[in-house]
Amino acid sequence: MAYFNGNYIPKDEVRISPDDRGFLFAEGIYEVVRWYRGFFYDMDSHVSRMKRSLREIKITWPEEDTFPVIARELIRMNNLRNSSALVYLEVTRGSASRTHAFPNPSVSPTVYAYAKEFVPENNGKESGVSVMLSEDIRWSRCDIKSVALLANTLLFQEALDKGFFEVAFTRNGLITECSHSNIFFAVNGILFTHPESVYILSGVTRKNIIRIARKTGIPVKEEAIDEKMIGAVREAFITNTSGEVTPVVKINDVIIGEGAPGPLTRTIRERFNDHICSLKH
Amino acid sequence: MAYFNGNYIPKDEVRISPDDRGFLFAEGIYEVVRWYRGFFYDMDSHVSRMKRSLREIKITWPEEDTFPVIARELIRMNNLRNSSALVYLEVTRGSASRTHAFPNPSVSPTVYAYAKEFVPENNGKESGVSVMLSEDIRWSRCDIKSVALLANTLLFQEALDKGFFEVAFTRNGLITECSHSNIFFAVNGILFTHPESVYILSGVTRKNIIRIARKTGIPVKEEAIDEKMIGAVREAFITNTSGEVTPVVKINDVIIGEGAPGPLTRTIRERFNDHICSLKH
Repeated sequence: MAYFNGNYIPKDEVRISPDDRGFLFAEGIYEVVRWYRGFFYDMDSHVSRMKRSLREIKITWPEEDTFPVIARELIRMNNLRNSSALVYLEVTRGSASRTHAFPNPSVSPTVYAYAKEFVPENNGKESGVSVMLSEDIRWSRCDIKSVALLANTLLFQEALDKGFFEVAFTRNGLITECSHSNIFFAVNGILFTHPESVYILSGVTRKNIIRIARKTGIPVKEEAIDEKMIGAVREAFITNTSGEVTPVVKINDVIIGEGAPGPLTRTIRERFNDHICSLKH
Repeated sequence: MAYFNGNYIPKDEVRISPDDRGFLFAEGIYEVVRWYRGFFYDMDSHVSRMKRSLREIKITWPEEDTFPVIARELIRMNNLRNSSALVYLEVTRGSASRTHAFPNPSVSPTVYAYAKEFVPENNGKESGVSVMLSEDIRWSRCDIKSVALLANTLLFQEALDKGFFEVAFTRNGLITECSHSNIFFAVNGILFTHPESVYILSGVTRKNIIRIARKTGIPVKEEAIDEKMIGAVREAFITNTSGEVTPVVKINDVIIGEGAPGPLTRTIRERFNDHICSLKH
C-alpha cells in the first residue's frame, strides 16, 4: 500500500500523470526516512528539511505536517512495524499543461509515499569501501533535496562500473559530498567534513554524527578537505540514512590509513549504534 | 491521442509509474519539434540531438529512429495536419525499484509523446522583450537536453515575477543562454552567441540562425559576451523552436539600442521567415 494524494492505495495502482511537473521538469523534492523496528530515526529533522526544500522551490503542500502520520500509517498498513524499513516521500509541483512557468492558477502538489522493508548491507561496513573522486557537475543548489538527481545517478553508476562503492564530488578541488551520502575525513585526530552550504545536502545522519563525535571528545571541523590532501587522511567514512556509517579505505587508488577501518571510525560507529539503541528504550 | 511505450492511446489514459526513473531521478531526455502546417521544422537535427542526449545519459531506446514516424502519426491522429503545432517527446530510463544504480538487468525505457496545437505569441515579436540576467546555477552538462530542468523553471518563474520575459544565465560573468532559448547579441555589426559547449544546449534554431546570418552576409562569432559588455550591445534576440526569433530590447535595466527591434534583428527575422516559407514549397 502506498500513499498518493490523500489516499492509501495499492502501489501498483499509483499512476503519475505525464503532465506531472516532477516527470516533465524534475520539480519535486523527496525524503527517505529510516524505520528501526518501532521508531523513525530523527523524523523531526527530516520534516524540517522537507519543509525547507519545499519552500526553496516554492511548492506549497498545505498538509506538510502530516508526513509523520503518513509514514507511520504506511509502516502499519504494510506490516513493517517489527521490521527494518524505509519510507520514501516525493512531493512535486503537480500536474498542468507543460510550460516553463509555474501553473497559474496553481495546482495541488503531487504527494506520493511508500514504505518498504530495508535490510542494510553489512559487508562493506566491516572491511571498508572504496570511493572514486569526480568533478562535481551538479547544480549549485545541492542543499535542496530535489529529484533532479541525473548527475548523481550518472556519476554513481560510473563509480560502480569502475569497481567503486560510491563517488565523492570535488568542486574547485575541494571534496563536497558523495552521490547519496556525506563524507568525513580524519586528519591528525580531527574529523573534517564539508560545511553546510549550497554545495552539499545537509544530511540528517551527518548532523547527528557531528554531535555524537563532539560528545565523544573527537574534535570536528566543518571544513572541506582538498583532494590534494588525500595522502594525509588517516581515516574516512561516509554517512547516510540508509547506510548509517560506512568506513572508506580507498579513495581513487590511494589506500587510506592501514586499508582497514581505523579506531576513530570504529568509535563513531559504536557510538552511533549506542545512539540508535538509546532511542529504542 | 498520445504515444506511450509503443501504443497510441488517449492522453488521459497515459499513466507514468511512480517507479519511473524520470519521476524519481530526472533520468530522461526530451525534444520539442515544431509542425508548420505540413512539415516538421528540421526534424533531422532534432533526431540527431535526441540520439546524442540518450547516448550521453546512457539510455538505449532501440526504436529511436521511429521518432519522426511517431511525431507524424500524432499530428495525423490529432487532426493537426493543417495547424501550427508542437510535438513533445520524452524518453526516460524506465521503471524499476528505486536505487541510484541503473536497473540491472536493464529495463525498457519509458517513451511518451504528444502533439498539441501551438499558436505562437506575436506581441513580443514586434515590440521586443526584456531579459533578466541571473547567475547560472545549473549543472555543467547543459548540452544534454535532459528533463532535470528545476533550475530553469525556478529562474524563469523568478524572471516572470519580476516582469521579464526570459532569464539569461551568466557563468563566470559570461552570458551562456536563456532558460529555454539561446541568445544572440549584435556588437559593431557582428552577431555574437555563446559557442557550443557543456554550458549551453545546442539549439536547432540557433544553428540555423547562424547559417542564415552568414548566408545573408552578417558576420557571426560564436563567442560569449561578458555581462559587463551589455552597454556596447546594439541589438539582441533570443531563439528557440517554438518562439523562433524574438527581439530583446532590455537586459536587466539596460535599454538595448533604441529600445526597439533593430535592423539586423529585423533582417534575421525576415530571412528566417523566408527560410520557413521555402521549406513549405
